Amino acid sequence: MPDATGDADEILALEERALARWCRGDPDGFLELSAPDVVYFDPFRDRRVDGLPALAAYYDGLRGTVSAERWEIVRPSVQRVGVTAVLTFQLVSQGGGAEHRWNATEVYRRDPAGWRIVHTHWSFTGPPPPPAPP
Amino acid sequence: MPDATGDADEILALEERALARWCRGDPDGFLELSAPDVVYFDPFRDRRVDGLPALAAYYDGLRGTVSAERWEIVRPSVQRVGVTAVLTFQLVSQGGGAEHRWNATEVYRRDPAGWRIVHTHWSFTGPPPPPAPP
Repeated sequence: MPDATGDADEILALEERALARWCRGDPDGFLELSAPDVVYFDPFRDRRVDGLPALAAYYDGLRGTVSAERWEIVRPSVQRVGVTAVLTFQLVSQGGGAEHRWNATEVYRRDPAGWRIVHTHWSFTGPPPPPAPP
Repeated sequence: MPDATGDADEILALEERALARWCRGDPDGFLELSAPDVVYFDPFRDRRVDGLPALAAYYDGLRGTVSAERWEIVRPSVQRVGVTAVLTFQLVSQGGGAEHRWNATEVYRRDPAGWRIVHTHWSFTGPPPPPAPP
């Protein structure tokens, strides 16, 4: 049985592989990693996305639209708790001449099929830009 | 031993109690609920906050500054996984003449002392406002 460090390395490798596909416009890496009962937040949706079919429908609409030339996971942390592991990190990506900074939470669960994501939360890293001058 | 529904009710009650204090400017409800190894994201910080001492220092600086006249937890979900429970919800709060909408993740762990938060992620609910006219 792998130790906690081995689990952390495995989870980070899974996330990086899915992110590499995502940044080429391919959402299937995350869909293959996500559990049937996944729940999902990102800053573009006004409601949580509940369940894999709903997430697949959403991601299908984004297929081919994402293109990041470079990206980097910053300060990853893995908290291993029983059969779950809470991966948190910041993502810095460059694409289309702009840099984007994200906060990310991925809660993984050890399922019979392997580690699966049961919760994803993407948000923009702050602080927010100062208010426009009056 | 309480069943999963009992756990979900208990966790939601803990969160509501801490939120009620938070909305009166008192961060101690969340500090008492948070585990020593808590990791924390919100949209005002450019880095994750790691560990209870760092979170306490941050929250101490906010003591007395938060005041929400009304607030509501919307569509809470509790995913119970082994000794952890992933609580996600949206929060709508009114204060100072403005309405604020949040996405929230709280990962609770069943510790000997009771349920404790090991990860918090607050972000603004989207979609973001349209860009200002040129």
